Amino acid sequence: MSAIEITKEFIEEFIQLIEQRNEAELNPILEKLYPQDIAEIFDDELNLEQAVYVASLLESQKKVDVVIELEPDVKLKFFQGYSAEELSSLFFSYMKSDDAADILNNLPADLSKQILRKIDDKEHSRNIASLLKFPENTAGALMAKEMIKVKLNWTVKRCTDEIRRQAESLSNVFTAYVVNDYDELVGWVSLKRILLAAESRTVEEIYDDNVIHENTYTSGEEVAATLKKYDLVALPIVDAFNRLVGRVTFDDVLDYMQDEAEKDYQMLSGISEDVESSDSVWLLSRARLPWLVIGLIGGIGSSLVIGGFEEELRQNVQLALFMPLIMAMGGNVGVQSSSIMVQGLANNTISSTGVVAKLGKELLVGLLNGLVCSLLLLAYGAIFGNSQKIMLTVSVALLAIILIAALVGTLIPLLLDRFKIDPALATGPFITTSNDLLGLFLYFIIGNLILGM
Amino acid sequence: MSAIEITKEFIEEFIQLIEQRNEAELNPILEKLYPQDIAEIFDDELNLEQAVYVASLLESQKKVDVVIELEPDVKLKFFQGYSAEELSSLFFSYMKSDDAADILNNLPADLSKQILRKIDDKEHSRNIASLLKFPENTAGALMAKEMIKVKLNWTVKRCTDEIRRQAESLSNVFTAYVVNDYDELVGWVSLKRILLAAESRTVEEIYDDNVIHENTYTSGEEVAATLKKYDLVALPIVDAFNRLVGRVTFDDVLDYMQDEAEKDYQMLSGISEDVESSDSVWLLSRARLPWLVIGLIGGIGSSLVIGGFEEELRQNVQLALFMPLIMAMGGNVGVQSSSIMVQGLANNTISSTGVVAKLGKELLVGLLNGLVCSLLLLAYGAIFGNSQKIMLTVSVALLAIILIAALVGTLIPLLLDRFKIDPALATGPFITTSNDLLGLFLYFIIGNLILGM
Repeated sequence: MSAIEITKEFIEEFIQLIEQRNEAELNPILEKLYPQDIAEIFDDELNLEQAVYVASLLESQKKVDVVIELEPDVKLKFFQGYSAEELSSLFFSYMKSDDAADILNNLPADLSKQILRKIDDKEHSRNIASLLKFPENTAGALMAKEMIKVKLNWTVKRCTDEIRRQAESLSNVFTAYVVNDYDELVGWVSLKRILLAAESRTVEEIYDDNVIHENTYTSGEEVAATLKKYDLVALPIVDAFNRLVGRVTFDDVLDYMQDEAEKDYQMLSGISEDVESSDSVWLLSRARLPWLVIGLIGGIGSSLVIGGFEEELRQNVQLALFMPLIMAMGGNVGVQSSSIMVQGLANNTISSTGVVAKLGKELLVGLLNGLVCSLLLLAYGAIFGNSQKIMLTVSVALLAIILIAALVGTLIPLLLDRFKIDPALATGPFITTSNDLLGLFLYFIIGNLILGM
Repeated sequence: MSAIEITKEFIEEFIQLIEQRNEAELNPILEKLYPQDIAEIFDDELNLEQAVYVASLLESQKKVDVVIELEPDVKLKFFQGYSAEELSSLFFSYMKSDDAADILNNLPADLSKQILRKIDDKEHSRNIASLLKFPENTAGALMAKEMIKVKLNWTVKRCTDEIRRQAESLSNVFTAYVVNDYDELVGWVSLKRILLAAESRTVEEIYDDNVIHENTYTSGEEVAATLKKYDLVALPIVDAFNRLVGRVTFDDVLDYMQDEAEKDYQMLSGISEDVESSDSVWLLSRARLPWLVIGLIGGIGSSLVIGGFEEELRQNVQLALFMPLIMAMGGNVGVQSSSIMVQGLANNTISSTGVVAKLGKELLVGLLNGLVCSLLLLAYGAIFGNSQKIMLTVSVALLAIILIAALVGTLIPLLLDRFKIDPALATGPFITTSNDLLGLFLYFIIGNLILGM
């Protein structure tokens, strides 16, 4: 709940004020609005000219905070309202290094270079440039260079002065990191502790030398897991020589976690790009089509498998009745097994070792569930008087496909993970399609054996 | 990366030291270990007697921090090592109110009452009791009562004193909330600002009256979304009279978001309880069986649908060849549409209104993808010389089922949401099964029409 509720009426009035260039009334409204809310209005309601005008009314820091929050495509469009010089002086000079690096990564390389070159504060532009070199999804790419660094022999008074100097423009300051003369990370001290300590005490007397940290090359998943496990508001990042080079804050991890969860969810749903229901029809179609084509190819494959047994099918048309059951169950079990593996791998609760034990367990689960389902099916057949041989075929095939689907669903994510491919690929349409083929093949083989007797 | 790496060898030595009751060597190790790491060792490696002994070596606050981090079942087992009095004095007296309420909610009601009654600090026990009354998944149930409250007319000096008094045992102190004489929330001031202000200034001079907050009855989703959107490290919670009653911190939201993402993911995968791959075979089976039985019933339903067309099938056995294709495509499209709705509803990017527009869009996406897939299929048929009438049947049915699956996949989550049922129920096996039935029915109806011509 923020101070101004953004209703349709509010938006209409707001746009009217913009069209009238009514600064006197706009200024107090803009002051009350949070950057995130202004960004949403930019995203959904304003054209470029209106957005540039509103931005011109905002003070430097708020202007930057708004821009950071814009949707990526809106951000690119908004930047077209400015020259490279203006982008440097109005936006990138005031931006936290990690935000700046994120945005520059998505701009044309030429424009990025121009902007970087035109930032007056050379240390700031060097900081941003140094972040650009880290591979995606590493701590180095997630971290910001801005933070409070203090030295062991400093007094609390000097820390406060330093925080005043370093932190005036820095939000989310909760912790100061302690370094030695070689800039190596040796500990941390909370802002609370500094606030409560006498001014004459030294950092050495009040700091904690037990400091959780990660390296620049640590993966994003691990950074998120560490910050979450230890309930840290920020995680210091060191380079290969243990020198403090940056920090990742909780808000970056919140964003990262949501992105990752959405990616996995979409993968499981058979949607290949990051889309939202508000995206265009074209984008939505394109994100789904690849998976549908995989399904189509799988379906054609299935028709070839069944075609190979056309003669058997002609003699026992009833076999066709239970094809859907076999397929559906194989698909369901495969998705269950694979998604539990994918989650386990994502949470680091499974290692690639101990595969045999995992497999054994999944097979046991499959056996248990398969037996229950097969017995239920036999009971159904007995009660409703279906052909006994057909029902025996279906039950045996059901048990077999449940076991095999559990096996495939467990193995494929583990294999992908071992080969450093995102195991989430193995969930959704991919696993369903391969289990359909396997299941139908098995079904007819078993049918052949039982019905041919 | 924490100070001590927990390897197999470390665990072996550690347990040996416990068995020898070697306090002299254990103490420095325990001091270096984080509560989260000790909790993991309790979870996986120690028996009750060993755990109680190790706990007896920890100082009060760390003992509590370890217990909070234990797995729920381990926590319950661990508590059996203590009497109700000991639980009160050793653990619950030092526990943050929200952690205490969470744990008490999962203990037998009798034991909970005894523990609450035996807490010496009556204000603390009242705080905990007041949290127990909030419905699950509301801000009230997520919040903690502990926080820093300051008044408008206080000086910075008085704030510091108050923080010293209130916050000595309180971790995660980053912000002080400002209240008026009626205890109503009127603003906030960051610890950084207090640290940097002169001691003689008043809160009124340095505070920010623009304070984002939520009500006790706000849903957990909204709390998480607000904290995330505004990058807040903690979100103050007010009651119906705007009185400040608690705060939700970022670490609670991190846990909440991960739980929700896992729940949705498991729902989509057809797993009904929160299980991990490390759980027992029995638990894993039980979590999956309900969905498999739904699949089984769906499969039997499919067999009845197909059975109704047995004569047609006998005359055109080739129709059976493409049943899997129709089913797989209906299933894939249904899951795609439903999961995009479920994500949209979870992120609040869709409202239940504007349903017609959403439907129109999904149908357009379906039409586009359906046309592409049907044309691909016709081309395949033409190239490989399949029966033209069969391929026409399959293509028309494919287009129809893609459209209908998109419709069903969009409508059901919206309907469930409107009736306050978790829309995630509509993803996974549920939607696949109903689309299988619909798809097969349509397929044979269309086959009848085209082949009967």
